[in-house]
Amino acid sequence: MDNNFENLCLNTIRFLAVDAIDKAGSGHPGAPMGMAPMAYALWQRFLKHNPANPNWADRDRFILSAGHASMLLYALLYLNGYDLSLDELKNFRQWDSRTPGHPEHGLTPGVDATTGPLGQGFANGVGMAIAERHLAARFNRPEFPIVDHHTYVLCSDGDLMEGITSEAASLAGTLKLGKLIYLYDSNNITIEGSTKLTFNEDVAQRFRAYNWQVVGPIDGMSIDAVDQAIREAQGDTQHPSLIICNTTIGYGSPNKAGTAGAHGEPLGKTETQLSKQHLNWPYDEPFAVPDDVLRHFRASVEKGRKHENDWQNLFENYARTYPDEALQFKEVLSGSLPHGWDSELNNLFDDTVKPMATREASGVILNALAAKVPALMGGSADLAPSNKTLIKGSDGFAPPYYAGRNLHFGIREHAMGAIAHGMALHGGVIPYTATFLMFYDYMRASVRLASLTKDRVVFIFTHDSIGVGEDGPTHQPIEQLTGLRSVPGLVTIRPADATETIEAWKLAIGKNDGPTALVLTRQAGPILNRNEFAPADGVRRGAYTLWQASDKPQLILLASGSEVHIALEAARKLKESSVAARVVSMPSWELFEAQSSEYKSSVLPPDVKARISIEAGLTFGWSRYTGDAGANIGINHFGASAPSNVLYEQFGINATKVVQAARMLLNIC
Amino acid sequence: MDNNFENLCLNTIRFLAVDAIDKAGSGHPGAPMGMAPMAYALWQRFLKHNPANPNWADRDRFILSAGHASMLLYALLYLNGYDLSLDELKNFRQWDSRTPGHPEHGLTPGVDATTGPLGQGFANGVGMAIAERHLAARFNRPEFPIVDHHTYVLCSDGDLMEGITSEAASLAGTLKLGKLIYLYDSNNITIEGSTKLTFNEDVAQRFRAYNWQVVGPIDGMSIDAVDQAIREAQGDTQHPSLIICNTTIGYGSPNKAGTAGAHGEPLGKTETQLSKQHLNWPYDEPFAVPDDVLRHFRASVEKGRKHENDWQNLFENYARTYPDEALQFKEVLSGSLPHGWDSELNNLFDDTVKPMATREASGVILNALAAKVPALMGGSADLAPSNKTLIKGSDGFAPPYYAGRNLHFGIREHAMGAIAHGMALHGGVIPYTATFLMFYDYMRASVRLASLTKDRVVFIFTHDSIGVGEDGPTHQPIEQLTGLRSVPGLVTIRPADATETIEAWKLAIGKNDGPTALVLTRQAGPILNRNEFAPADGVRRGAYTLWQASDKPQLILLASGSEVHIALEAARKLKESSVAARVVSMPSWELFEAQSSEYKSSVLPPDVKARISIEAGLTFGWSRYTGDAGANIGINHFGASAPSNVLYEQFGINATKVVQAARMLLNIC
Repeated sequence: MDNNFENLCLNTIRFLAVDAIDKAGSGHPGAPMGMAPMAYALWQRFLKHNPANPNWADRDRFILSAGHASMLLYALLYLNGYDLSLDELKNFRQWDSRTPGHPEHGLTPGVDATTGPLGQGFANGVGMAIAERHLAARFNRPEFPIVDHHTYVLCSDGDLMEGITSEAASLAGTLKLGKLIYLYDSNNITIEGSTKLTFNEDVAQRFRAYNWQVVGPIDGMSIDAVDQAIREAQGDTQHPSLIICNTTIGYGSPNKAGTAGAHGEPLGKTETQLSKQHLNWPYDEPFAVPDDVLRHFRASVEKGRKHENDWQNLFENYARTYPDEALQFKEVLSGSLPHGWDSELNNLFDDTVKPMATREASGVILNALAAKVPALMGGSADLAPSNKTLIKGSDGFAPPYYAGRNLHFGIREHAMGAIAHGMALHGGVIPYTATFLMFYDYMRASVRLASLTKDRVVFIFTHDSIGVGEDGPTHQPIEQLTGLRSVPGLVTIRPADATETIEAWKLAIGKNDGPTALVLTRQAGPILNRNEFAPADGVRRGAYTLWQASDKPQLILLASGSEVHIALEAARKLKESSVAARVVSMPSWELFEAQSSEYKSSVLPPDVKARISIEAGLTFGWSRYTGDAGANIGINHFGASAPSNVLYEQFGINATKVVQAARMLLNIC
Repeated sequence: MDNNFENLCLNTIRFLAVDAIDKAGSGHPGAPMGMAPMAYALWQRFLKHNPANPNWADRDRFILSAGHASMLLYALLYLNGYDLSLDELKNFRQWDSRTPGHPEHGLTPGVDATTGPLGQGFANGVGMAIAERHLAARFNRPEFPIVDHHTYVLCSDGDLMEGITSEAASLAGTLKLGKLIYLYDSNNITIEGSTKLTFNEDVAQRFRAYNWQVVGPIDGMSIDAVDQAIREAQGDTQHPSLIICNTTIGYGSPNKAGTAGAHGEPLGKTETQLSKQHLNWPYDEPFAVPDDVLRHFRASVEKGRKHENDWQNLFENYARTYPDEALQFKEVLSGSLPHGWDSELNNLFDDTVKPMATREASGVILNALAAKVPALMGGSADLAPSNKTLIKGSDGFAPPYYAGRNLHFGIREHAMGAIAHGMALHGGVIPYTATFLMFYDYMRASVRLASLTKDRVVFIFTHDSIGVGEDGPTHQPIEQLTGLRSVPGLVTIRPADATETIEAWKLAIGKNDGPTALVLTRQAGPILNRNEFAPADGVRRGAYTLWQASDKPQLILLASGSEVHIALEAARKLKESSVAARVVSMPSWELFEAQSSEYKSSVLPPDVKARISIEAGLTFGWSRYTGDAGANIGINHFGASAPSNVLYEQFGINATKVVQAARMLLNIC
């Protein structure tokens, strides 16, 4: 192919981006202009994909971690024949378009990950590569490499500065994820100016220290140099690869190239015109796509069809030789659960009488589930023995076999969240993570993105209150439960005992349109005898009447998790003095909100206005359920270092306080 | 000194830790046992400190980033003669003790930073070194190095795995903070087992890539080797130093040394006994401190007194030669503000009529403040042009002079938070940070710690709602304001216009017992003409009546920030149809909660039950103010990519919706 024509192709990408951003009146032209050669080399010469089927299981994955370069991706998707029209590009960043400011998975065909918050895409890639290696270990057979694809990530200076990237890169190197290939757009410019101001590190040396293969620095403006570098990266199957591409931000813009001015605002009419002249772009009208350029890109459609056809043939032969495996493979990819997956859960604790922490119960349930659901895999940020998240009898996920289902994330909560999310985005696995609830603070951005993209990840958080005890205020969550409840779309469940924990797990695993947070105690609590109390499947409705002294209660006690037992104790005491209380176990606000108003009123009858919430955390938001006439018992300050039971007493989270509050509300002296 | 005696000293530290942890029944013995030689070498041979005055300005700073090794620090503080008794050590991890599970600054004399959440202490250290270099640049004069101390940090594998550490280390290397010295306890063990599982990287190479001096790996169990390494580290003044100390976790415990079993639980009676035998510890009773050992350690008291005396003499001479500088130095260290610091703020926008984003206003105010308050310094995570946080006319904080007050943090929100906190912990500066509100998610853990330790940091968050517009849901905060409000002790202020922004800044700068979050708009809004509306100093009370159609309002509209203008528009419309509304501007829930109940009732009269909150974020928690009969207008789902005004319309955050809701509440058809 002659250079002139390839330049025309690059400029087509560039000016689709520039024109769309000009039209929108906002956006980031500099990155697409500089990254066009990297993207072109990767997409037109290497990427294994089928534009007609963006969900083909064995496609290479592509993540634009530098999500602000979204128009680069949209241009590629349109040009390569994905279901994304030129009109959508003209509608960039507008209401109801499929071309939002940052790429959104699920909204735009061909977008493998929602990116923009820097570093997240970088870490998602590691998760995708983990899923790929694991599924390959599980399903590939000699001569049948049905899972065999690369994960490619385009990343930027900003990605490399973010800590999450460091976490993910170190783990990827340890795990020898050789099919991960990152192209790093090293343009030496960030918003505040030269990277010299803040980022004087030797990136190549740093990544070699992480056990990565580092290729370059190469001339990132040369398609052939990028081509050669990707070949080199593919050649090393023992290390993830970082290709350092020296590029020019805003390449082609006479006045903005190489400056922060090209980063985050439209070039504007004049500069766009100058840029088009400068790059010998012969078209006056915006959004011009030369016919031969489009034809050239659209060859991907036929190539993609053939790619997938070849794979389908391979898979059909595989299915003949390994019919069970083929069925299982289809099942895990569909995201559905094996028949009978939950059949043995309900009886797990029948003979258990000893008090048990819900994290303990969770460990038992997780293992029972893992036996039935081979897609379930995950682990902890170095707290597995405390989080109770080890799948017994399974290996650690590690080279060279990768068949193990226990992930060791290291002390890297933020990357853990994004890696698990990347695994879910890849498909074929159901990932879970674990840490102390306190350290949700380290991974909030990743949990949010999993919720935004509606992916099934089970986020386990143990040590969920001052019940942590002696470790003190740095380790005692106070506002973190409020935090989980505030994430749109996230379902948070804080079960009261082992039996509610079963239901919580069922809901989490069964929900394939979003993540679930399981919030579990460190400390032991009674197991509710369901002959005495309402059935635990009330958890499905978010809140349910667990017990009441009378079916005409004067008072409602609402509680979640470990505090349900305090509510019960208080209700029993109140009964002794002839006060009829209802105890509502409320493990999940989100699930309760999804119920009919009839159901809600049945649990919280509008005429019973004396209501008390009890939770060992902020009272924030509880007034919604307890109302003007209610009271809230909780902790609106930091914790302290002391044994758990001392803290419960000192902070007034106990039955005595509940009884006092009840008497006050009911005007009983 | 003979080796036997030094071993006795080390074992005294070790068994104080072991005994205290045994007595408490919980804690982390492995780290103190392994780190005793590192700590001993540093504390007894290098650390410049005065046990009698833990707040001496020119002391070396010491951070135990591996905060779980708290007993190591408590043992050192006791032995070195700080105001911490042996009884306190016996009371380890108990209610009301000064020896909590993780070290808490402000609670225990000699604890320079609250640590435990891994990586935070590492980054705090960078902030302390920044403050030291800056104050040195500002105050030192030839022959008067009145600011001249090191910052020492003990850190662990877990610290090095956390992303925040990567961020902080890269910046420290760029800034050539040569007086930072980190001792890395490399014991190859984390909770889940060998670091080989997850952390196979070459730490030395990684830190060299960050432009650090790396010393070692050395034998961290040898006091002399550590001594030699610290000398080497001190010798390099152009690079921060990492001393890699190979150690044995749980050293001395015959059955647990070198294993994860030594990490997080007491050795227990038997193993303690065996360990004492193994190390030839001759004392049976717990908490034994040989007299000569105590005498040896307590030499620090006299040495410390002399250290500070020498410095006081230096400072007195300095004060004679540079009286103004000496006064200023005392002032900045006291944390008080210069006379007249706020004298020119109130008139800043008198002649301004054009609508203005509150971030714009903040930029003007910040610059006016910076002119009067030289201690004010800070910056953004690479968004200064958007956050409007540049101090004009000041340089960037950079080597070799460090006099600049503009910090360039790079795209490193998490480290930014902890670094700013470290600056505040150091004292002498008033730090501020800035990023988009969305990226508060990246720095939550650091903001929380600043609040826990009650340090003055101004956290600026701009682009505070769907007003972000086209950047879309990845960049539009929804639940982040709820998040800020939920942090105990943090004061969050979301001003409605430029005049409220003045008050917000005054409160933030004036509050020297905790951090403040300023939440600011991207988009322009009107400046409230205070002849027409109540004075802006109502901000101090958190909420105030801004305007009302009548002093007998039928309806209260509560709003914060940009939505105050929507409330006003709605109130005017309602007035046209003879509905009397009161508009309450409510920039800060925390400040409002601190008011008397009389004041609260005057703003929200109990008998006016028709109340509507309007905020472009979650409605979460607003029911507390709007009550059972109220309504909440907000956004309980993710945002979308479109122009800001379109989003306000599509999501129903507008005066029409408010008027509709008002009519519904008041039963007006």
